[in-house]
Amino acid sequence: MAEKPKPKPTPDSTRRSEKSRRAIYEAALALVGEVGYPKTTIEGIAARAGVGKQTIYRWWSSKADVLLDAFMDLGEQAARAAGQETYEIPDTGDLAADLKLVLRATVDELEDPRFEIPARALAAEGVVNEPLGVVFITKLLEPQLQLYVKRLRSAQGKGDVRRDVDPRIALELFVSPLAQRWLQRTGPISYAYTDTLVDYALYGLAPR
Amino acid sequence: MAEKPKPKPTPDSTRRSEKSRRAIYEAALALVGEVGYPKTTIEGIAARAGVGKQTIYRWWSSKADVLLDAFMDLGEQAARAAGQETYEIPDTGDLAADLKLVLRATVDELEDPRFEIPARALAAEGVVNEPLGVVFITKLLEPQLQLYVKRLRSAQGKGDVRRDVDPRIALELFVSPLAQRWLQRTGPISYAYTDTLVDYALYGLAPR
Repeated sequence: MAEKPKPKPTPDSTRRSEKSRRAIYEAALALVGEVGYPKTTIEGIAARAGVGKQTIYRWWSSKADVLLDAFMDLGEQAARAAGQETYEIPDTGDLAADLKLVLRATVDELEDPRFEIPARALAAEGVVNEPLGVVFITKLLEPQLQLYVKRLRSAQGKGDVRRDVDPRIALELFVSPLAQRWLQRTGPISYAYTDTLVDYALYGLAPR
Repeated sequence: MAEKPKPKPTPDSTRRSEKSRRAIYEAALALVGEVGYPKTTIEGIAARAGVGKQTIYRWWSSKADVLLDAFMDLGEQAARAAGQETYEIPDTGDLAADLKLVLRATVDELEDPRFEIPARALAAEGVVNEPLGVVFITKLLEPQLQLYVKRLRSAQGKGDVRRDVDPRIALELFVSPLAQRWLQRTGPISYAYTDTLVDYALYGLAPR
């Protein structure tokens, strides 16, 4: 993992570090969205953030590391904006309602240009660049998918999901359709759509 | 749509045209897989196929058109190899079995390097290049998805799928998880995996 800036003893230098760190994240996300991953460079990020190249190299060893932290920071900002300390799937006892709520928030995030443009650039690179794809999926996407695993396990404990179901596969029935429509533009995205996915996944396509 | 080579009156020139066309398709698919879509050029395809640039421009107006026809030809070859004139989803009356059979064939295709490498390059470009993505999804992927729509409608007619289900969304419960695992490498792909997707989608995650 990338090293985080270490706060210096004085409040002023801490503020300066925090300001630089934020400028670097914003520059990295903007640049990758504009020119794509292959043409994004540490030099380009530094120039755009108005910091020296060495400031970046002091904290991160590669552009992949900068982008990884920038996306993690974006996720933390979104969680804070939603009034959460860490991102969690609610467990109100109503599985369908809890899943629909989280998927509606995901629809909003996927349509937010601050997330969408850099995330598309990185996702595109991950499709053809296996080592990068694996790192970003493992560190950014999989931890989010594990929140669904946890929520589905809780539902299995209460008898709301069959016990012979593998939660890691089950979550894909509602997460992957949304991901594919977003990535490949195979269809429109809306709350009604993600609500429908949850209902179909929980109750099945065959008559009961 | 791209113009197809028009056979000349003599058998010899027809054979020559067909040979050039096949060489162009193979060159286009190999090149896009090796250097990616942005660096693939008509000049590069011509050089690799051993034909003049004008031969390509006589039949196609852009590299996107060449690639579109090359992928369609690859699909037709796969259908012929499977002993089918046109690609269809079987309708034996056993919906689960029919879907599992087709998804197993898709697993094989996704893992075939002749398809996988160029398809990844094109999918990656489609994620960030909206006009290209829309053309390829509309002309290559959506017609395949419509075969599932047709099969699910037939199942609705027989009472095997609820009549209030939208077949265009329903198919995504088993198609999109496989697509995401392949595109983003979020998990391994196998016949057991796609069989499980079909069972979960048809019978649902909640107890019956």
